[in-house]
This record gives sequence, structure tokens and C-alpha cells, in this order.
Amino acid sequence: MISFESDYIEGAHPQILKRLAETNMEALSGYGADEYTSSAKNKIAAACACPEAQIAFITGGTQTNQLVIDTMLHPYEGVVSVQTGHVSVHEAGAIEYTGHKVLPLPAHNGKMDADELEQFIKDFYADGNHEHMVFPGIVYISHPTEYGTLYTKAELTKLSEVCRKYGIPLFMDGARLGYALESLHTDVTLKDIASLCDVFYIGGTKVGALCGEAVVFTKKNMPNHFENLTKKHGALVAKGRLLGIQFDTLFTDDLYFKISRNAIERAEELKAIFIERNYQFFIDSPTNQQFVILENTKMQELQKNVKFSFWEKYDDSHTVVRFATSWATTKEKIEELKKFL
Amino acid sequence: MISFESDYIEGAHPQILKRLAETNMEALSGYGADEYTSSAKNKIAAACACPEAQIAFITGGTQTNQLVIDTMLHPYEGVVSVQTGHVSVHEAGAIEYTGHKVLPLPAHNGKMDADELEQFIKDFYADGNHEHMVFPGIVYISHPTEYGTLYTKAELTKLSEVCRKYGIPLFMDGARLGYALESLHTDVTLKDIASLCDVFYIGGTKVGALCGEAVVFTKKNMPNHFENLTKKHGALVAKGRLLGIQFDTLFTDDLYFKISRNAIERAEELKAIFIERNYQFFIDSPTNQQFVILENTKMQELQKNVKFSFWEKYDDSHTVVRFATSWATTKEKIEELKKFL
Amino acid sequence: MISFESDYIEGAHPQILKRLAETNMEALSGYGADEYTSSAKNKIAAACACPEAQIAFITGGTQTNQLVIDTMLHPYEGVVSVQTGHVSVHEAGAIEYTGHKVLPLPAHNGKMDADELEQFIKDFYADGNHEHMVFPGIVYISHPTEYGTLYTKAELTKLSEVCRKYGIPLFMDGARLGYALESLHTDVTLKDIASLCDVFYIGGTKVGALCGEAVVFTKKNMPNHFENLTKKHGALVAKGRLLGIQFDTLFTDDLYFKISRNAIERAEELKAIFIERNYQFFIDSPTNQQFVILENTKMQELQKNVKFSFWEKYDDSHTVVRFATSWATTKEKIEELKKFL
Amino acid sequence: MISFESDYIEGAHPQILKRLAETNMEALSGYGADEYTSSAKNKIAAACACPEAQIAFITGGTQTNQLVIDTMLHPYEGVVSVQTGHVSVHEAGAIEYTGHKVLPLPAHNGKMDADELEQFIKDFYADGNHEHMVFPGIVYISHPTEYGTLYTKAELTKLSEVCRKYGIPLFMDGARLGYALESLHTDVTLKDIASLCDVFYIGGTKVGALCGEAVVFTKKNMPNHFENLTKKHGALVAKGRLLGIQFDTLFTDDLYFKISRNAIERAEELKAIFIERNYQFFIDSPTNQQFVILENTKMQELQKNVKFSFWEKYDDSHTVVRFATSWATTKEKIEELKKFL
Repeated sequence: MISFESDYIEGAHPQILKRLAETNMEALSGYGADEYTSSAKNKIAAACACPEAQIAFITGGTQTNQLVIDTMLHPYEGVVSVQTGHVSVHEAGAIEYTGHKVLPLPAHNGKMDADELEQFIKDFYADGNHEHMVFPGIVYISHPTEYGTLYTKAELTKLSEVCRKYGIPLFMDGARLGYALESLHTDVTLKDIASLCDVFYIGGTKVGALCGEAVVFTKKNMPNHFENLTKKHGALVAKGRLLGIQFDTLFTDDLYFKISRNAIERAEELKAIFIERNYQFFIDSPTNQQFVILENTKMQELQKNVKFSFWEKYDDSHTVVRFATSWATTKEKIEELKKFL
Repeated sequence: MISFESDYIEGAHPQILKRLAETNMEALSGYGADEYTSSAKNKIAAACACPEAQIAFITGGTQTNQLVIDTMLHPYEGVVSVQTGHVSVHEAGAIEYTGHKVLPLPAHNGKMDADELEQFIKDFYADGNHEHMVFPGIVYISHPTEYGTLYTKAELTKLSEVCRKYGIPLFMDGARLGYALESLHTDVTLKDIASLCDVFYIGGTKVGALCGEAVVFTKKNMPNHFENLTKKHGALVAKGRLLGIQFDTLFTDDLYFKISRNAIERAEELKAIFIERNYQFFIDSPTNQQFVILENTKMQELQKNVKFSFWEKYDDSHTVVRFATSWATTKEKIEELKKFL
Repeated sequence: MISFESDYIEGAHPQILKRLAETNMEALSGYGADEYTSSAKNKIAAACACPEAQIAFITGGTQTNQLVIDTMLHPYEGVVSVQTGHVSVHEAGAIEYTGHKVLPLPAHNGKMDADELEQFIKDFYADGNHEHMVFPGIVYISHPTEYGTLYTKAELTKLSEVCRKYGIPLFMDGARLGYALESLHTDVTLKDIASLCDVFYIGGTKVGALCGEAVVFTKKNMPNHFENLTKKHGALVAKGRLLGIQFDTLFTDDLYFKISRNAIERAEELKAIFIERNYQFFIDSPTNQQFVILENTKMQELQKNVKFSFWEKYDDSHTVVRFATSWATTKEKIEELKKFL
Repeated sequence: MISFESDYIEGAHPQILKRLAETNMEALSGYGADEYTSSAKNKIAAACACPEAQIAFITGGTQTNQLVIDTMLHPYEGVVSVQTGHVSVHEAGAIEYTGHKVLPLPAHNGKMDADELEQFIKDFYADGNHEHMVFPGIVYISHPTEYGTLYTKAELTKLSEVCRKYGIPLFMDGARLGYALESLHTDVTLKDIASLCDVFYIGGTKVGALCGEAVVFTKKNMPNHFENLTKKHGALVAKGRLLGIQFDTLFTDDLYFKISRNAIERAEELKAIFIERNYQFFIDSPTNQQFVILENTKMQELQKNVKFSFWEKYDDSHTVVRFATSWATTKEKIEELKKFL
């Protein structure tokens, strides 16, 4: 059985395990007050070309989205997201748990349209009744999106401009950010993101770490007492070294980018195979998640040897499924897949 | 510089790192649906002699307290804790964040008195106005307490009886549970705890794991849709293997107990040194945290070579400080401490 | 200047003021433990033909929606509402404030379609990922809707059947319930509502009271310690008599229905005038709210003499506006409006 | 049966009912955008000698405490209150419902000591661990307290100075403020309060209104979008006239003060009777609530003819009970009480 179930089916990049082992018996202060955490922050700020970046490490993606959105919002505000956004549909109401509404916009292949965003904000302020409504207080986008798609630099710039025009911070969920940055079909760099977004996170869990996301506040805009609020959310890790060492390793010698590139190369190979065999794609994804339409009998047959994710029903006889590659996917696994298609 | 700053200054027990490395490239399903997580649950249930135990793994202690208390309480209820309880003072309001009040009782060396608990509950129901008050809905105790002290089996039994009499679940915070179980001065076993408590957790972060706590619901009383609520709290870990493999390792060949015993042995040695040198103890602790009263000049001198934690001011010329041993503390470090006292 | 701005522009029905004055100096216990509150509950239960009804009085509509929905939901659930539902758009996020998501369905003239509801529930349970999503936990409808429209008995029955099939309570927001019940174009009675809904409220604020809504739990399903939860929400009124006496008066000699009928009669007259003058309606409303499309110049001219509410932009030269009648609207006011059209 | 059960057993001052009736059919805009509400605000600002006062009207006391405290606090902060404070014990956890902790200080006859407050704040900031604790963010006092006692001007000034020194707003719960201001034993005026407090409220419910409290922000410090936040709390009243007209009446021709004085005069008479008959007082109260220690047999006998409130058990044979007078208490009722003592 070979698995393309997700990009978090393997453990951590071996270099991370090595560094954890090497530093294991060093006595380090807790809660992120250790030298590895500091070093990781410095390396990330440098990679972002954002010396004033304020950085925090959080265990997982939903935790990060919940914490960042809650602490960036005023109490009268909500978060604008496309309907298919992770915070909108797949976080069990974690945002609402913090008392904030998710304000949905239409999704276009998982992406938000800057014009629609501006119209939404304009309409809000034009509504005479808006004091009885939830104010748009932060804009949430994911890159890659939940459908593997990417914003172009022009699109991202336009979203950023709309946000700044109305004084609303732009937040990018980068749970799979490495796979966006290393896509063969992107013109968006990490520096662009640090410049265009007010806050974003660099995903570790899905890109080679055991766990962990690096939140980057780019405009000296980290909420006051963010450590306290992290603790209040139950999200503060005692052994901060676990996150610090992992990100310090990922941002040494470009490891984060190199291992992301592997996922992209394997995804391109996988894509080529499906194209060659005349499979239909549900969406054209330039990243590590590939959405294929399978005839149902074929799907059931394939499941005997290959793990992948159910995505959604396509029609009565077809299903959309997802194949994900990762930093750890081998060429051999791709080759093996061929046998079963 | 040698450090007794806390019991989370080192990484993980080497056996854990070894198992993480050995299993690293296995493709495992996420969110705890992997075989190591299942195995860990089975081993813990067995160690608890509680075959019907329902077990969940959570990243850290505050997260666990917040999640368990919130999901076990009805909305009209709060949690009863002694004033010095971790949930009461050192979690940045994480319980209140979930909408629930912490109802404080007096602490006796960090412990709750069963008679005072019963009187509190009786007084609550006797108050004609209690529909305008917060109902006692769960009882929180820590074992060891925040002051390193332990409940006797008789004390724990009495607390459990009061709780059952009034239909209120008893929750034990076992962030340092190993150090309680392996104390030379305890008659309380893990099986006793599983029998007397309705829910408790076995701390990993402070007892040899990189992170992680194992929550045990002992009476088939895990809240409905607990996975969903864990997600809603932002506490669900994608790579559940990280927690599963660690606890599977800790509960193989009694590793959890053996490494806990090391902390106790070192603490007894450390205690003996302080006694020999005529230091005063703030409290008589039978576990891995030792609270010593230092004359302030002595304290400043000592800080040049030894790390320990400020606890509280004792008087104008003395301070209470904490020395903590752990699973990783060596005999050599204890010997070295002697030089500076 | 004559006003059709809303149905809460006047004070209270004179009979209510009279009863408040007559009972004013009686010494009554607080928090609803007075005889008028009891009497009001009995009369409402009788009017609903629901002897087992459990009834509570709350000051206003948003408060009621927030309290009922929050206390009826499990923590892993949200409320299903059409996108135009009051709880979805015009309550400043009051539902999300309680930690629950509003799950939006398409609106059809303000109404929910039972088939779409069933499909939504089915899709939810069919989604393999639904433990990471918000469970549908209560269905919210308004009657009349925010667009003045009404469910037929057949439609309401079907919604109720879907809800029962999936074990989800049906909640009706009846902020303007009198105007639904007295519409010339309805086959739904108060008894039907009590039978088909699990909980609903009878609006007072917009139907002759100074303030107040009567929540009716029809299936012995009032949440435990509802008084405590009302207090916790800040919604418990000390002088419960204020709500009790008002509803006791409204449900004496069918006053609630008679004064609702006045609003309907005036609305029909108003409608006839607009039709006669060839105005376009935005929606065909059988209740006290009438939505008319005005040419923008005409609108500005009319505003010099008549107050009405802006509803939404229709096109570049036209606007949708709302004219509302109430229990207090006089025939004279309708006549006067003619002059300005 | 005569009742001294509370100060909210009667309806409203007749002048209020008269004004409600006189203005009843005027068409007024909702949500406080009416002329009576504006007029009431102006009159209150004048009475406070605080022209820059920002004023809002809320239905009840718990609602007001919950709304003010929640909206004034940062998310990392809690409210400091004495242990017997209403927000601490008798609001069913309404503060915690908003996610904030109540930080308890010792009560001295219901009052907070300024030195203890300062020590608490100092200790908080001196604690090296305070980022893991709840920051003191607002100070809550009640005047009169829950035990009928009053702060002197010197005490209030000192509290205010401590608050300003540490940048923490001082909030006064004035649910019974009239009875404080008209006490024969006070040197604190409404102007003093407006000057010394950052926010306070003038209670209506217990001082002659059907319902309603007037919140006064004295330092141009009303939270942004307070109307929206009031709506989000479910606390915005559609017919704002109900609150506006009541307070406009109460602050016309000093009515609020005159009717408060009646309660004080009756309380002094009642007190004199108890003294004359050699009853013991539990506390020396200079306001409208009198706490008397009754022998239990006597208490049961008295209950046949007189209503009063159980307060707390004094010893095995005695009970503390409360007698409350109000704006509506007559001399005759006091005379009648004599018969039963």
C-alpha cells in the first residue's frame, strides 16, 4: 500500500531529528526563552528580508489561525474569508469559539478576488445599518489555497492594496507555504509575502516538521502581551525548544525551500502520469495537492493499493479525490503509483 | 552553570527520540488515527487497570486543563480549585476564556481539604440565591500540587467520596504525575487514581516527552464529539504520531515510572545536601520540586553558578526558591551543586 | 412629517400602560416570581394549546435569539439560518459571541427551503471530514421573515419533519409573530407553531409592548437552569413584573391578536395605495412590512414629508425602501400618506 | 403582609409612568436615537458637572457590569473586585462568560482598601511569572456596597489615585447610587464620583425606574463602537425611548435625588425602631439596606407578617436578614412594622 493521503503522513525531516538529538541534553529555559528559538527567529526575519519582523511559534495551523485572528481583531470585528477557506469550513468553529464571525466571500478556485473584497467593504460601510453588523476586521487568505492554487504577485498586491486602503490587516495562512514558494508556476517570493501581508505564517507541520508554525508579524504589529494571550489560548508550549530547534534547522542552509521543492517535483511527475493516462483534473493545481476526478469503480479498485483522500462527490459516477506529495515523497513511490493507474 | 530551573529544561528521553527516528518514514494517518496512538492508549489503559478508559493526547498542560474543564462543565457551572491551583493563578485566565469561573477554596500546602470542599458545596446549595451563582461543576486538584506535595490515598478517597456524593466529577492535573507515583512517600498508585478520579492526565512534557499529556476519562465519560471540541479549541494535532509514539514509548517496559524514579532519587539526594548544610525548607516536598529559603546575599552568590526559580519573597532578607530535578538529572549535577552551597 | 420607519416607533398599547399604572404600587417579588408573570405564562400556554409549555420572558429580540440558541446548542454545534436571517446579518455577531457559528443556507424571499435544509444536513453527515466541521444543532427561521414573508403550514410542517428526522430542534423567531398570525394570507395558527416548533418566541417589542419577548419551549425542553443561564447572559430582569404584566395584558381578551390585526389592515390599505399609484413592490409581503422600489428623485422628495427605511440599492436610479405599519398605525396616517405619493 | 424584601418590589415612580403615557404615541426613532434619550444624557452630564460625559442606557445591572467590564478590558486583563462584590459572587459568572477573570481582594464591610489594591498591583508586576497571569485591567467597586456601606470621599480619592498611578480605570457600580448620594452619612457627591471614577453607572431599576441603568464614561473613554458591542451582547433596546424617557424624568427637577431621600428617611426610621427594640445589627449601614441579626424563632414568627430577605446564617440560633426600603416606602409601612417586632 502506498499513501498519498496527505502531506503530514511522515514524521520530520531527518536533519530535524538529528538536531533534536544533538541538543537534547542541553539545559534550556522554557517558553521560547532559549537560544535556538532566538536563532530561528533571526533566520526567518532574514529570509523574509524583514528585520523588524516579530515572530512566534505555535504548534498547529488551526491553533495559529484562531490565535492570530482573535488577537488581531477588535471585539466588533470579524474575519473575511472565502467560503472554502479553512477557517470558514474545516476548523470546527474555532474562530467563532473566540467570539468572532467569519464573513464569507465567494471563492474562485479557492481564491479571493480583490474587487469583490473591496465591493464587500464598500457595501458594508454604505449600509446605514452597519453598526448592527460585524465589521470586516482582518482578511484571511491561504496560499496555497485549500485547492492547491496560488495567488499571483499581481493578485496579492491588489488584495494588499485594498486592505491598506481600508486599514484592514491582511493575514496569510501559509500552512503549506513552502509548496507555494517552490511551485514552478509562481512569481511570489517569501519577501513579497512579508512585504504585502501584515501577518502570515510559515507552515512547519506539513513541510518537514513534527509540528509547528512560525507566525510572522511584519509591521511591528504583534498584539500586546502576545505571550500572555498565547497562554490564555492554551497554546504556549513549555519546551519552546521543540519549535525553536525545528525552525532553526528548517531555515539553515535553505532546508525549508529544498525540501519543499521535492514535493513540487514529485507532484509534477504525478501530474504528468495522470495526464498521460488521460485522467481529468478537478482543478489545475501548481502545488503539492492534486485533485483528480475518478470514475467510482476505478476509485474503489485503486483504493486496494493506494491511499488518497476523498474530496467531494463529482457526479453520480465520479468522485473528486486528492493526491498529496510532500517533502518526503520519493521518486520510487511515484513510479509505483503508475502500476495501479 | 548548572540548572535546576525546572523539569522541562531538557529535551526528551533518548528512547523517545530513538522511536521517533525509527518510525519516522512510516506513512501514518493523521489526527491520532495511527497504530502507535492506539497502542499507547491500550498500554495506558492497562497500566491504569481501567479497560474502559477513553484516552486522548493533548500537547500541553494548560491546553489540557482548559479543554477538559470546558468540555466537562455545563454552561452554568464552574471549576472548584484551591487558590494556589495552576488553573486558578498561572494559566493567564485560560479557564475564564472558556466562559467558566474558577471557584477558589483555601489551599493547605497546595492541597484541597475534603471537608472544606463538602462544606463549600453544602453552603452553595443552602444559599437561597444560588440560581444567581456559579454551580460547582468539577473539582480540580493537582498531584503533585504546585508545591510538590501529595495527597494520601485516604485524602484522595475522601475527596472522591465527596465528589460522588454530590455528582461532581473529580479531575486530577497530573502534569508531574510520574513524580507523584514514584515518590518514596506515597501510598497512591496509578490504579488508585484511575479508580478515584473521573478524569485525570498523565503528564509527558515534564516527564520525559518533548510535549504531550495523556488525558484519561475513567468512567466512559469522555464528552461527546471530543475530537471536534479538541479541534474547536485549536488543540488537535495533525501529526498525532508525535504524541502517540512518545506515550507508546513511555508506557513500554515501565519507562515512564523508571525515569520518574530518577527524578525522585536525585531530589532526595539534593534534599539531603540542603539538610546537611542546614538550609531551611519552605515546605516539605516528597517529590521532584524542592522549595528552599535562601538568605538574599547567599541567593545572589549562588545564582552565579546555579540556575533555580524564584518562587516568592519570604521576608525582607530571605527568598523562597525552587530547585527541580527531572528524569534527566544526573548524580554528577547533584554533586556539582554541593560545591556552591 | 409622518413616519412608517418601523413597527417600534410608538410606545406601548394604552391598555398595557393602564395595567402598569394600576399594579404599580403592589409589592411583588423580583426576577419573575410574581403572580402576573405566572398568569401571563398560563395565558400564553393556553393560547398555544400547549399545557406543558415552559415560558420565559426576555427583554429584546437579539437577546432572546442569543440566549435560546446558545443554551439549546451543544458546544460542537451551530445554528442553521438562511443568509438573510436576522441572526446571520443584523445582530452584530451576537451568536458568534456565544462561541457558535451561523451556518448559512440560501434564502428564498427570506425563507428556508426544507429540501435544501435536508440536503445540507445529509451532506454534512456524508462528509468524511465532518468531525472537523460545525454540526447543525438548531434550525432558526423567522416568521414573518426579515422580508415580511410567511411560511405556509405545509412549508412549516415540512421543515419540522426534517428537523425531527435528524433530531435537530426548530426555533422560530417571532419578533413580529402577531403580524404573521393576523395576516390575511396565512394558514398558520399559534397552535400550529407550538406544535411544529420546539421553541419559538412571541414578540412583544414590535407588537404593542414597551419591550419584551415571550419564549415558549414546547416540548418540556427548556435548558436546565435556564434562569441561571439568563442571568449569566446578563438578560435576567430584576423587575420581572415589567414583562409579566405586559404579556398578561397582551394575552387577556385576545389583545395581542386584535392589535396585530390593526397593523395588517393598515398595511393592506397602504399596499392598495401603492398599487393604485403603480409603484413596484420589491417583494410581495402579506404582513406589516411593505418593500417598495422608489425612483431615487421620488424617494428624496418623499423623504421631506414621510419617514421610511432604506433597505437596499435596487439599481443606479432606484432604491428599495420599507414602509412598516404597527398596532398603532391610524387610518388617518395612511390617508395622509396619499398626499405625498 | 408588608414587604421589605428588596428595593425593586414596586413599579416605577408615578411621574415616570405619567411621562411614558404622555409621550406614548409620539413616533420616535429606535435604538436611542430619540430626543428624550438625548435630553436625558444632557441632564445627566449636567448633574455630573461633566460636559464631556459619554452616556449609554442599559436595561439592568448585571448586563451593565458585564458590558462595561468586557468592553473596557484588554483580552489579557481581568477585573479586580472585593470577594463580596456583585460581579464576583451574584452574577452567575456573567463576567467569566465574557472571557475575563474576576481577581478577588478581601472585603472590609463590603469595601476595597486602597492600600491592599496597590499592594496587589505591585505584587502582580513584581511576580516574574506575571505574563502567565491575568493582568489587573479595571477596578470594580460598588457604592453603596452589597452590604449597604459607603466609601468616604477620602477613601474614594485614594482608590482613584492608585488606579491612575497604574493606569487602571476605576468603575463604580451604582445600582443603588441614589441611596448613597442621599445618605445622611456621606461626603461623596455625584460630581465627586464623575471626577474620581473613569466609568460608573447611575442605577434606575432600584431607584424608581421600571428598568434601566445610565452608564457614564467620564473621560472620553467610551469604547469604540459601543453601540455595536451593546448589540453584540444582546443588550441594545429597540425602543430606546423606554430608557430615555425614564432617565429624562428622573433627572428633571432633581426627582432622582428626592425619591432617593425618601428611602434614606424611611431606613433611618426603621433603624431607629430596631435600635429602640434592642435588635443587633450585622453591619452599620448608612443606606437603604439594613442588616439585622434575628433569633431564629423570632425570625419565623416575623415572617408570618413581614417579608424580608435571608442574608446569611449568623450562628446556630441566629440569622442575618435584610430589610430594604426604597423610593416608594411609606411612613405607614414603617409604623406597621413596629407592631410585629
